[in-house]
Amino acid sequence: MTHAISVEDLSRQVEQIFLAAGMSLGQAAPLARVIVAGERDGCKSHGIYRIEGVLRTLEAGKVRGDADPVAHPAGNGAIVRVDARGGFSNAAFDRGLPLLVERAAELGLAAMVVNDCTHFAALWPEVEALTEHGLAALVMCPSYATVAPAGGNRPLLGTNPMAFGWPRPGRHPYVFDFATSVAARGEIELHRRAGKPLPEGWAMDEAGRPTTDPQAALAGAMMPFGGHKGSAIGTMIELLAGIMIGDLTSPEVLDYLGTTALAPFHGELILALSPDQFAAGRPGNPFARAERLFQAIQGQGARLPSQRRFAARDKANADGIVLSDAESAQLDHLMARGLDAIR
Amino acid sequence: MTHAISVEDLSRQVEQIFLAAGMSLGQAAPLARVIVAGERDGCKSHGIYRIEGVLRTLEAGKVRGDADPVAHPAGNGAIVRVDARGGFSNAAFDRGLPLLVERAAELGLAAMVVNDCTHFAALWPEVEALTEHGLAALVMCPSYATVAPAGGNRPLLGTNPMAFGWPRPGRHPYVFDFATSVAARGEIELHRRAGKPLPEGWAMDEAGRPTTDPQAALAGAMMPFGGHKGSAIGTMIELLAGIMIGDLTSPEVLDYLGTTALAPFHGELILALSPDQFAAGRPGNPFARAERLFQAIQGQGARLPSQRRFAARDKANADGIVLSDAESAQLDHLMARGLDAIR
Repeated sequence: MTHAISVEDLSRQVEQIFLAAGMSLGQAAPLARVIVAGERDGCKSHGIYRIEGVLRTLEAGKVRGDADPVAHPAGNGAIVRVDARGGFSNAAFDRGLPLLVERAAELGLAAMVVNDCTHFAALWPEVEALTEHGLAALVMCPSYATVAPAGGNRPLLGTNPMAFGWPRPGRHPYVFDFATSVAARGEIELHRRAGKPLPEGWAMDEAGRPTTDPQAALAGAMMPFGGHKGSAIGTMIELLAGIMIGDLTSPEVLDYLGTTALAPFHGELILALSPDQFAAGRPGNPFARAERLFQAIQGQGARLPSQRRFAARDKANADGIVLSDAESAQLDHLMARGLDAIR
Repeated sequence: MTHAISVEDLSRQVEQIFLAAGMSLGQAAPLARVIVAGERDGCKSHGIYRIEGVLRTLEAGKVRGDADPVAHPAGNGAIVRVDARGGFSNAAFDRGLPLLVERAAELGLAAMVVNDCTHFAALWPEVEALTEHGLAALVMCPSYATVAPAGGNRPLLGTNPMAFGWPRPGRHPYVFDFATSVAARGEIELHRRAGKPLPEGWAMDEAGRPTTDPQAALAGAMMPFGGHKGSAIGTMIELLAGIMIGDLTSPEVLDYLGTTALAPFHGELILALSPDQFAAGRPGNPFARAERLFQAIQGQGARLPSQRRFAARDKANADGIVLSDAESAQLDHLMARGLDAIR
C-alpha cells in the first residue's frame, strides 16, 4: 500500500527525525529540505533512503549535528569562504549563498568555497539555488577513493560529481549533475542486492581485472566515465575542489573515515557566473538564445538532462510524494532510533 | 629524407609565410608560435599542417589578417574582455593575458572573454600561458555543428574542446585538452584518407544510423564522448563559451561560414584561478599536495595527460623539430602561395 504526503509535511517529519537525533534546527532544516527534494524529484538514491546514513554518521561522531557554520565575505575579492565547522554542507551552503549571489552579480564571476563539511547530497539543489538568482553555476566536490584513474588498477579518485546549471526564466533550469565515474557507487550496490551482474566496463576487481561481479567491484575499483577524458575531469575535481581549496582529496577522505559507509568529510567548490554581466554590450539576449539551443536539442528527439526529475517534481508538488507503507514504517523506526541515540 | 630545424627557425619561417600572405606582424607572430608549438609537441594535427587552412581562411575573407585586438580591463569586475576585431584568437589572447593574470591574482578568480575571433588552435597553449603564472586555468570554446546531442540524430553541437591546467613549479604543468566528441573531426578525416573504417560508436550517417564509414560520418554526425554526460558538457560549452559571452554557437558558426573547411569564427572563455588565494589560511601547500596526487596516479601505471606531448617537446627543444623533405617543400610552396595571394 502507498499514500501521498505533501512536500511540506514530509520535510517536517524528516526534520523531526534529525531534531530527535540531537541535531540543531540550523543543521536539521536544510538537510531535511534537500533529502525531501530528492524524494520529491524521484531520485530515490538521494531521498529518505539517506536518512539512515546521516544517523550513522552522527552516531560515529564524524559530523557535528549542531555546528554553526561561519561565512566569510569576499571583501574586495571573488572568493566567499564558508567554514562548515564540521557540520553538514547544506547549512554551510545556505549561509554563504547570499554573499555569493551578491559578489557574482557585482563582479560577473565569483566562487564559494565550503570547507570542513560532511557532504552526501546531490549537487543539483545548490546549482538550482543559484539559477533561481539568474546565475549560471558550476559545482564540484571529491568523495571517497573508489575509482581507478584511466590506465590504472586501484581506487584513487572519487566518483567526484560535477553539476552545472543555466537559468531559464519561467521554466525549470537546464541542470546536469553526474558522477565522473561510469556509474554511481549506489548503482553497483543496487546490482549487488538484486543479484544482477554489472554491465561491462563499469568496474575492475581487486587485482585490477575487468569484472561484472558487483561484490568484486565493491572490493576493487570503479572506472571513470568516458575513458581518459572522464579520468582527467575527475582528477581536475580532486585538484580544484580538494587540493586548491585546502580540503581533503578522495584518498584522504577514505583514510580519515576508514570506510565508505559514512558520509564523506571534505570541501566543495561552487562557481557562479552572471550571464547578464558576461553578455553585456554584446548582441542578443543570452536567455532567449539559450532557449533556441534547447529547442534545437529537443527538436531532434534528444532529452535535456533532469527532464525526468522535473516531471516528477511537478507531479509531487501537485499530488504529493507517494511513499510505500514500508517507507512510512521506516521513517517511524528512524524517529525512534534518533530518540534512542540521544537518550 | 628528414632534417631537424630549431623551434626558433621554424617559427621564423612560418611567420614569414603569414607575412608574405599579407598578415600583420601582430597577427602572424602569435599564430606562428602556436602552430610551431603544436609541431614541436608532436601534435601533427595542430602543427604546420594547419598553415594551409589559415591561408584558405584569409583568402576567403573570413578573417582579418591585420586586425589589432583591443583589450578592455576588468575595472572593478572579474571579466577581462578582448575584442579580436575579426582577427585570430591568438593575438587577442596575448593582448588580454597580462590583464587576466593581474585580476586573477588579485581576486582569486577571473575570466577572459575573447569575442569575434577566428579560432582553430589547440587550447593547451593558452592553458600553459596561465600555469606559467602560477594559475590554474579552465578554457573552452564552441566550434562548428558536427556532433549530435546524445539521443539525437543530427549535427548540432561542436566538437567543443575543454582544456584544464594546473601549475607544477619546476615541471611541465598538469594539462588536458580534448574534444567533447568521441573523436576529433580530423581523426575521421584521417580514417577517410587511409580508407580505414571508424571504430564503433564514433559517428552516425545522414539518416541518424550508426556508421563506421568515414565518408558517411562526415556527411552525418559525430557522437559526444561518454554518452549523455559528454553531451551535457558539450551543451554547457555552447552555453558558457558561446551564448553567455555573446558570441556564436556551433550551429551559428556553420551557418555563417557555410563550410567546415574554413577556420571557425566565434569566441572563447578562459577562467583563471589562483591556488595561492584559494588555499590561503588552509593547511598544506596546494602545489606539494598536488604532486602527491600525481605520484599516486603514476604509481599505479596510469599516465598523466600530455605526458607524450611534453616528451616530444623536450626532445624537439634539445634536438630540433624533424621535418620530412615533403614537409619542407610544402612550406616553400605555402610561402609562394602567400606571395601570390597578395600580388
